[in-house]
Amino acid sequence: MDPWEGSSLTRNPFAWIREALTSSEQDVVNLSGVDTAVYFVFLSTVLGIFALSSLLILPILLPLAATDKSIKNSRDVTDTTSKGTFSQLDNLSMANITRKSSRLWAFLGAVYWISLVTYFMLWKAYKHVSTLRAQALMSADTIPEQFAILVRDIPSPPNGQTHKEFIDSFFRDIYPETFYRSLVVTENRKVNKIWEGLEGYKKKLARAEAIFAATSNRPTNKTGLLGLAGKKVDSIEYYTDLINESVAKLETEQKKVLAEKQQTAAIVFFTDRVTAALAAQSLHSQMVDTWTVTEAPEPRQILWENLNIKFFTRLIRQYLIYFIVAITILFYMIPIAFVSAITTLANLQKAIPFIKPVVKITFIRTVLESYLPQIALIIFLAMLPKFLMFLSKSEGIPSRSHAVRAASGKYFYFSVLNVFIGVTLAGSLFDNLKALQQKPNSIVTVLATSLPKNATFFLTYVALKFFIGYGLELSRIIPLIIFHLKKKYLYKTEAEVKEAWYPGDLRYATRVPSDMLILTITFCYSVIAPLILVFGVIYFGLGWLILRNQALKVYVPSYESYGRMWPHIHTRILAALFLFQVVMFGYLGVKLFVWATLLVPLIVISLIFGYVCRRKFYSGFQHTALEVACRELKERPDLEEIFRSFIPHSLSTHKPEDHQFKGAMSRYQDYAAISAA
Amino acid sequence: MDPWEGSSLTRNPFAWIREALTSSEQDVVNLSGVDTAVYFVFLSTVLGIFALSSLLILPILLPLAATDKSIKNSRDVTDTTSKGTFSQLDNLSMANITRKSSRLWAFLGAVYWISLVTYFMLWKAYKHVSTLRAQALMSADTIPEQFAILVRDIPSPPNGQTHKEFIDSFFRDIYPETFYRSLVVTENRKVNKIWEGLEGYKKKLARAEAIFAATSNRPTNKTGLLGLAGKKVDSIEYYTDLINESVAKLETEQKKVLAEKQQTAAIVFFTDRVTAALAAQSLHSQMVDTWTVTEAPEPRQILWENLNIKFFTRLIRQYLIYFIVAITILFYMIPIAFVSAITTLANLQKAIPFIKPVVKITFIRTVLESYLPQIALIIFLAMLPKFLMFLSKSEGIPSRSHAVRAASGKYFYFSVLNVFIGVTLAGSLFDNLKALQQKPNSIVTVLATSLPKNATFFLTYVALKFFIGYGLELSRIIPLIIFHLKKKYLYKTEAEVKEAWYPGDLRYATRVPSDMLILTITFCYSVIAPLILVFGVIYFGLGWLILRNQALKVYVPSYESYGRMWPHIHTRILAALFLFQVVMFGYLGVKLFVWATLLVPLIVISLIFGYVCRRKFYSGFQHTALEVACRELKERPDLEEIFRSFIPHSLSTHKPEDHQFKGAMSRYQDYAAISAA
Repeated sequence: MDPWEGSSLTRNPFAWIREALTSSEQDVVNLSGVDTAVYFVFLSTVLGIFALSSLLILPILLPLAATDKSIKNSRDVTDTTSKGTFSQLDNLSMANITRKSSRLWAFLGAVYWISLVTYFMLWKAYKHVSTLRAQALMSADTIPEQFAILVRDIPSPPNGQTHKEFIDSFFRDIYPETFYRSLVVTENRKVNKIWEGLEGYKKKLARAEAIFAATSNRPTNKTGLLGLAGKKVDSIEYYTDLINESVAKLETEQKKVLAEKQQTAAIVFFTDRVTAALAAQSLHSQMVDTWTVTEAPEPRQILWENLNIKFFTRLIRQYLIYFIVAITILFYMIPIAFVSAITTLANLQKAIPFIKPVVKITFIRTVLESYLPQIALIIFLAMLPKFLMFLSKSEGIPSRSHAVRAASGKYFYFSVLNVFIGVTLAGSLFDNLKALQQKPNSIVTVLATSLPKNATFFLTYVALKFFIGYGLELSRIIPLIIFHLKKKYLYKTEAEVKEAWYPGDLRYATRVPSDMLILTITFCYSVIAPLILVFGVIYFGLGWLILRNQALKVYVPSYESYGRMWPHIHTRILAALFLFQVVMFGYLGVKLFVWATLLVPLIVISLIFGYVCRRKFYSGFQHTALEVACRELKERPDLEEIFRSFIPHSLSTHKPEDHQFKGAMSRYQDYAAISAA
Repeated sequence: MDPWEGSSLTRNPFAWIREALTSSEQDVVNLSGVDTAVYFVFLSTVLGIFALSSLLILPILLPLAATDKSIKNSRDVTDTTSKGTFSQLDNLSMANITRKSSRLWAFLGAVYWISLVTYFMLWKAYKHVSTLRAQALMSADTIPEQFAILVRDIPSPPNGQTHKEFIDSFFRDIYPETFYRSLVVTENRKVNKIWEGLEGYKKKLARAEAIFAATSNRPTNKTGLLGLAGKKVDSIEYYTDLINESVAKLETEQKKVLAEKQQTAAIVFFTDRVTAALAAQSLHSQMVDTWTVTEAPEPRQILWENLNIKFFTRLIRQYLIYFIVAITILFYMIPIAFVSAITTLANLQKAIPFIKPVVKITFIRTVLESYLPQIALIIFLAMLPKFLMFLSKSEGIPSRSHAVRAASGKYFYFSVLNVFIGVTLAGSLFDNLKALQQKPNSIVTVLATSLPKNATFFLTYVALKFFIGYGLELSRIIPLIIFHLKKKYLYKTEAEVKEAWYPGDLRYATRVPSDMLILTITFCYSVIAPLILVFGVIYFGLGWLILRNQALKVYVPSYESYGRMWPHIHTRILAALFLFQVVMFGYLGVKLFVWATLLVPLIVISLIFGYVCRRKFYSGFQHTALEVACRELKERPDLEEIFRSFIPHSLSTHKPEDHQFKGAMSRYQDYAAISAA
């Protein structure tokens, strides 16, 4: 995990490229899990789509556009590319094609070509990911969550029975031979707090001991606010006392939690994988809002506090949050439109007249003109993810990976609707508003006419994204700076240093939607301004290369969902393609090309393709297929250990890492007795 | 089954009413099954809705309408009830209320009252039916289909394996302990034909023997076309020869079918109900279009010829048939509108001038005015069901009960769209067409304004339905006539007579949608012309009474789906309520009542109510819940008999009724050996 050990930057600055290129998918799966491998399938699929598309499109469309004389002949034509300024780029875009020109056939064909390439690549990728997932789930190693299911909405037990007894008897009736035991979910807020306090004291004690060992001075600290006020005490003694106190408190609270704070959810364990897979997919109660079951998430990614939320409360929360997100998207549109308007250079000059002389310097002018609006946008978007993650968790989702998918989905709508459509329409919003009022159905036409005007903006947006984004990524410069500062001034123990460098995972919740935005932009401009395909290829190619390195050497996955992200990604790629087809239909209409209607079948095919993929593949991602679950294990699973892996840290008397207690059945039995009480 | 034995009509003409009224739901379940009991829940629920609604609505709305002076004051108002003729009925309908009158508050309140009553009754009924279903499925008796699942879309076996071996090894891997055996579906068209021929010869032989026994003359017949031409032969000898010939042919063909005509579907048997219930709900293959599983239908209702249809073919067929139905609905609209226009008396007089004097006789005039259009409609609708049933079966549905539900759904759309909306709009269609072209969103308004004009039409329609429909039903006069004619002139053997009287089942496929149409009409007019509620109460009350008698004494259910019809019925009742609310919203708008918007929350509540019911109850009807499947059986199930009950008659060497062979395991083993080949 040490940054200097993993990366060989110091020896040969390009060695990592060779390593990244020669690494196989299996390496990625082994080192970083299926989810990371699936992310690379995404990158390589999109790269493939753009590369294959370019092969045919660039050599055909660019000359066609360049040799038309539309713009040169009529400078007053409204749909030039770079807002008013006539540049070389305009010659290479579809805006340069005369209306009704028969050259538009080539552009129509290009839409078909890109679509067919996309269908082909997506189908291949879905199949591949499906196999990847199946192989991982077939693993001959014991995966604890494959032996368990998550049961929620458990009704109140009949009189005289505890939750635990009620659950056990219900499942023992149904699975007399394969039911192993159950773990009732408890309300852990208080015990978690005590446990976290205890862990904090332990760290502080270790730090005090480290200082003592290094300096031979017994360290002291003040007991008051933030360690700045109050009585001065000897740190080692002080923390030892606190730890003893906390341990006693923790034990009392643990007993109380197990006895009194049982909730309406449980994790139920079976003796084999097939039964668990069967149970997770089957209806247990005639009334669907009781005894609802799902596959158990990995222990490390369970969102415990959500498990007690009831069936219909979850539904209500879900719709409420959809509503909040829709409102937020709408209200974000306003500041973004404002930013986009104010940061146009012409507007800036009006607002702040004294920058006029500065603007006259060509270099500064170029930078400002190209990058100012984009930087504003990127900063704006950076503020969102935490909020969306919070919303997604509030839906009552039981696992972190699911919450990440939900947040990622919301972020995608945000970025496409606000950035792409928002920016495109904002420039000419007020002119268009009138048109929209008269013809509410003409949104596609309005969007189509606005697109070419913003081609330069989005070309630079994509470029900026890969220069700055991946540059930062490669050097991981910000965390490194923070790490070194902290290491120098704050940390004393080995554990502290380790924790500080913990690089986290790939952060799908923001990474995937921001890639998706680039994808959407590239798709939509791929025929209008074909040069963007080059940028798209570079973005996803560079992304693949750099992240391959990071995935193999830096990031540590924080959970494993066995590629459940893929259907999500697939649908959104297809949605982007769909948007592209609709926009092209509109733009060819604007060009008065009557054969634009030939795109209608293509749009229908996209819908059918999505439907077929969903029917064929999706259930395999939602559930574990039985042909997958029935593979034999390398060794008999240790059911006690599986059970223990689901016990929250704060309720476990020993950390799960302490393997010396693995065989200590007597101690374990104590716990079981408490848990059964 | 004898009509004279079951019905006690001859003794006391009203005894059957007492018997029907005193029969309990459990009697119905025992004698006629859960499906019939569910149908009575439907009747009594709707009866309850209308009766409860009447209680409040009739005493309040009728006086309110009668004391308003709108029509008398302005005879030229457009929305009078009975097309131009001023009658007593108009005084009692909402058309008599002045525009903007504050009396409309009561009508608005009535919509709320009816809706709340409906929610309450539907919720209670859904819960009740859910319990009925659960109890039936919990049965301690052995129900063969509870031990089996239907597997379709089985991929081709690897080289060197037969279908049978492939299927067995696949399921044995997953269910090593609970898999019993499998029955591969075969292509039986030819063997069925031979078997049917054989059965026909057997009947004819029996008949010839009966004639011989009665008359002592050896009967003869001709061998040519329809027994009219050709050589004259001795019937007994002739049919005995034919039977022997057929038996030999049948045996050869049976062997061939089992060996060569295996298809890609199978019925898989398990040793216990829980495993079968689990297996039927779980994903077996990572690719969803292979190894698809469903619960096995009852043996008697399997549509064998549909089982081989592939996953995506089924999907395509389904959508294709939706499309065909939509087209048919549209094209039926035209003749119905035509019928509706021509049969208006005024139009008839124009078309056929010489009937004018006849029309002047009041009685004939009344009859013609009231019943002519309705009779035309009823005849028209009678031609549809067979066509819709054919379409539904073509979708690739595996069981008869499912096909009935599908056909019933289509028939519902048909009748509501064509009869209700079609007739309502047809009268003023051409006037409205112009309005529609200008404002395409105003269909609700157009419908709302047209409704009151047709109140009389629909009042008489409902009346006609229960007078004629239930009259025929009670006497079952048509089948009785046919039966007695046939008995007298055709039948010679006991079996023939038995078969001739076979009354069939309740025929949900047409009965439910035609009740639904009455329900929709009553709902939609319940506030506009509240008197219709009386007719609605009579229709469903009489229906309940008469059919209770028929269900207990006449009809024999031809399959049992354990109430799976209910969600279907529930959704359509709710759809009718929704239509009613929308129409009332439109009509209150036409009355210029600004508070009509208060109905919007109600419409939203209907949608939410439907959604909640679906989420809470539907899965319990789609699958067998495990808490239901895990009940203990009275005795160990005879797995061999379960297996045998699924063998098609034409492949079984003995009729399943021949119980003397039950223990003949050696003979059975022969079959098993063939089947395994």
